Amino acid sequence: MEIIKTIKEMQQKIEQLKKDGQTIGFVPTMGYLHEGHLTLVEEARKKADIVIMSIFVNPLQFGPNEDFDRYPRDIERDERLANQAGVNFLFYPEVREMYKTEMSFHITVKGLADVLCGSNRPGHFDGVAAVLIKLFNIVQPHFAFFGMKDAQQVAVVTSLVEQFNFPIEIVPVPTVREEDGLAKSSRNVYLLEEERKDATVLFQSLQLAKGLIKAGEKNREKIQSEMKRYINQHSSASIDYVEIYTFPDLKPLQSLSGLVLIAGAIRFTNVRLIDNMTIDI
Amino acid sequence: MEIIKTIKEMQQKIEQLKKDGQTIGFVPTMGYLHEGHLTLVEEARKKADIVIMSIFVNPLQFGPNEDFDRYPRDIERDERLANQAGVNFLFYPEVREMYKTEMSFHITVKGLADVLCGSNRPGHFDGVAAVLIKLFNIVQPHFAFFGMKDAQQVAVVTSLVEQFNFPIEIVPVPTVREEDGLAKSSRNVYLLEEERKDATVLFQSLQLAKGLIKAGEKNREKIQSEMKRYINQHSSASIDYVEIYTFPDLKPLQSLSGLVLIAGAIRFTNVRLIDNMTIDI
Repeated sequence: MEIIKTIKEMQQKIEQLKKDGQTIGFVPTMGYLHEGHLTLVEEARKKADIVIMSIFVNPLQFGPNEDFDRYPRDIERDERLANQAGVNFLFYPEVREMYKTEMSFHITVKGLADVLCGSNRPGHFDGVAAVLIKLFNIVQPHFAFFGMKDAQQVAVVTSLVEQFNFPIEIVPVPTVREEDGLAKSSRNVYLLEEERKDATVLFQSLQLAKGLIKAGEKNREKIQSEMKRYINQHSSASIDYVEIYTFPDLKPLQSLSGLVLIAGAIRFTNVRLIDNMTIDI
Repeated sequence: MEIIKTIKEMQQKIEQLKKDGQTIGFVPTMGYLHEGHLTLVEEARKKADIVIMSIFVNPLQFGPNEDFDRYPRDIERDERLANQAGVNFLFYPEVREMYKTEMSFHITVKGLADVLCGSNRPGHFDGVAAVLIKLFNIVQPHFAFFGMKDAQQVAVVTSLVEQFNFPIEIVPVPTVREEDGLAKSSRNVYLLEEERKDATVLFQSLQLAKGLIKAGEKNREKIQSEMKRYINQHSSASIDYVEIYTFPDLKPLQSLSGLVLIAGAIRFTNVRLIDNMTIDI
């Protein structure tokens, strides 16, 4: 695995790879890799000749009171894991390499960003969209792989690629979970010991919703309130949101039908966790 | 010359051309071609193997009270001229092909768009930036050619490419003029007969400024007021702006030094004309 730290070198490498007729699979990450990321690499290896992973904690997508500074980082471990997983090139730029000057352009995500994590993290998806345009232009992949744990991010990137005509296929990859169902996340390390077990409530509440739907329930509010009741009864977490939308266009719907996204976010002492499920009704 | 009307077909063609090792020069236009555009094609032919011209009157860059509907169009003539000039592929999509759905993303151009035409045409460069991201992703050129008549557009696109890391070289091309100095423009056809002669005042006021600068004048306000006086004395036009900034970062400066842009916009009965000059002091 080769580590590349400058945009210029990455673009030169890509130009050569494309001249050689190689297809490129791209796994953008913020590092602190876990099995979720490694599953993305596995999928990328199946579809593309060359796998490029980026590790970049993008300041633009963190709010002023969010965890940019304390977002977990461990580049030595990440290098080892990426290498073992079969990544060919690790693009690992510094912030000042990615943002050489102040940006003269601001991207505002409309509609798609007004719900779920977007309403709780104003500006977050604006920053995601901006850095993805940059990364897509640097890596110029044929395929880009995103975990469904960040379902709203999948919705945003799908629109970004379609509406701006990037010649890239977005490949959503199912969420990887711990044995007890907790979705893998770099932020799980911030759970207190006594919170770790409680943290499964979010996944369990999704299973509860699935059960209700299988039993014929289609009322959005009823399902949401059952999920909230379950989370409150079985954990110390506070609920940020439990919501249901169409997917991937994230429109509200009163009676569930078609492909729907059921998503929740809950807070523990030092961490906010998200999880979701899509279900075709 | 081949005419291509869909994004998909254009992208497939590009993929094949790149596989064949061809370099691509791109000339984006809004059609109603004049010698200025054809000079861009000429420059593109010098630098690239294949020249792709787009003709697309982009609704996003016109304000609600601007001339989108009456912007001059003549596709048969454009096809003939593009073909004669040596364009290999003419990309000519309809509005509904370029904007299949309402955009979920709005791009705001900051700083660079707050001066000159930007302050007179709010949202104009936002729309320019959005359509250029689309066109760059569709055509994926090695080089893109822009006329210096739209100097602020050159400044915006230069930043766009740098800050979003498009692997594209922007090539600015000097303004092409009529014999009497009037900058070629698709909008010149809207000059009334008696206004046509007066229309040269803008170019003449730039020459006046150049003369003053050569004679040692460095005071921005003095030069601007001399230019305004000249335009008012010698024409029926009303002045939108006469301004001087650094180029290409468009910062104000009191005493002229370095590369500066002197730019003006004036209005006649049915048309607003712009012109400019860069001068290294």
